Amino acid sequence: MTLESWNDGEARSAIIEFVERTVRDVPENERLAVFDNDGTLWVERPAYVQELFLKERLAKRPELMEHGLVQAVLALDADRTPEEFTGDVETWFAGAKHPRFDVPFAQLTYQPMLELLEYVRANGFHVFVVTGGGVEFVRAVGEALYGVAPNDVIGSAVQVSFERRDGRAVLVRQPAILGSPNEGAPKAVNIQTHIGRRPILAVGNSAGDREMLEYVHAGDRPSLCVVIDHDDEEREYAYDSVAVTNPDAEPILTTAEHFGWTVVSMQRDWSRVFA
Amino acid sequence: MTLESWNDGEARSAIIEFVERTVRDVPENERLAVFDNDGTLWVERPAYVQELFLKERLAKRPELMEHGLVQAVLALDADRTPEEFTGDVETWFAGAKHPRFDVPFAQLTYQPMLELLEYVRANGFHVFVVTGGGVEFVRAVGEALYGVAPNDVIGSAVQVSFERRDGRAVLVRQPAILGSPNEGAPKAVNIQTHIGRRPILAVGNSAGDREMLEYVHAGDRPSLCVVIDHDDEEREYAYDSVAVTNPDAEPILTTAEHFGWTVVSMQRDWSRVFA
Repeated sequence: MTLESWNDGEARSAIIEFVERTVRDVPENERLAVFDNDGTLWVERPAYVQELFLKERLAKRPELMEHGLVQAVLALDADRTPEEFTGDVETWFAGAKHPRFDVPFAQLTYQPMLELLEYVRANGFHVFVVTGGGVEFVRAVGEALYGVAPNDVIGSAVQVSFERRDGRAVLVRQPAILGSPNEGAPKAVNIQTHIGRRPILAVGNSAGDREMLEYVHAGDRPSLCVVIDHDDEEREYAYDSVAVTNPDAEPILTTAEHFGWTVVSMQRDWSRVFA
Repeated sequence: MTLESWNDGEARSAIIEFVERTVRDVPENERLAVFDNDGTLWVERPAYVQELFLKERLAKRPELMEHGLVQAVLALDADRTPEEFTGDVETWFAGAKHPRFDVPFAQLTYQPMLELLEYVRANGFHVFVVTGGGVEFVRAVGEALYGVAPNDVIGSAVQVSFERRDGRAVLVRQPAILGSPNEGAPKAVNIQTHIGRRPILAVGNSAGDREMLEYVHAGDRPSLCVVIDHDDEEREYAYDSVAVTNPDAEPILTTAEHFGWTVVSMQRDWSRVFA
């Protein structure tokens, strides 16, 4: 059944109505969808999954902490190749468990969102993940979790340099961020840099997704903007999602009301939370 | 017929042998191919197509030239949206003709290369264009010319900023380059930034493609690196392709010989040149 973990209600109806209209009116090569990751496709509490990954590894390298957390994080994987980093993520991911739910993080994607990905793809949409998290971290797991190829993940990145080692070309991670973290206005900018066209469907959950949602909302085509409201303390968490890089930003639910975006209540709209 | 505009010979055999081995040995999601554009997929003489596009428009704005060519080019489309720029490219492209061949540029893609794109795609490859040219310029024509979606084009880019105009979110081109031009080492770096994995097939024609070819060559998987040699003055042009940003670099044919890459002679290997 289509969207079977979605209860009947305004959110489910708005999604189906939009997708059916798109199939009628929008050429397939313009059916572009952008999804935030943390708190939109999978759990982001009590901490971002990537944060847990980094902290566990930093705990083994206390000497890196003398210049502060950011420098330590950047130093942790400097001088390594993207392939080596990806291997580390995969290894960690296979063994790590969520502190509260005590299951691997692969089981903490949201079942209704997986169904939404499947539903829009079945209707010709091309799905991109646009994450504030590290692009290589999400790429390492995106294909298995969401069926999203590495080239369809846009995220925060570190600089890499081209080098030759023993005469063989290799890319090497540098201890420096590439541009700005992919949150807020950079999400919209990087959609242009990477995708090159304005999407018509955007899903997010925090103030860090605001500009991405606004950009999609302002296109000439009919569009759908969806905000996930974490209001289910029992099955997941109840909290106001904020932007890491801009904690004083207007709450995204206020923005959603202003623009008339579709709000998904985890408690009310989802019959099941986790995959 | 497969590769029907390719004469029997070493180049055609090397390509077919590589693709057949890939289909046997490489999972489909790792069959990634990167193609340079100018001089590899379409004609780049007597000037880059984008250069002709820019010069024609600069001729109408002589006041911009007072700060030199680079600043004039950047100023030409500053303050405009990517959508407006794309519209201009499409309009120009529909009317412009090549100074020697007197036909629209859409007819000056290389027929054997279109067949190669079709052949590798039919065998599960995902094709990306990695161009030194402007990414938005190539995106505007890439789908029609090569069947390559805008999100699969990697190129040189200008900065864009996120703004609100009359309350609507919009991206605006800035008079500044984003990072480095996409030639030489940046081609390999941007493949990582954008695609996130090392391709196994690379095709280029100039010293500006060297690092991209070297990077593909150095992967753990069997790979194929192909260099197009422009040696056909009669049907196209005969010249040594150089890197714009590094004109003193080693000629790419010398590099190709050193690494044992496959060289395609337009004169010898192609029974037909243009599409």
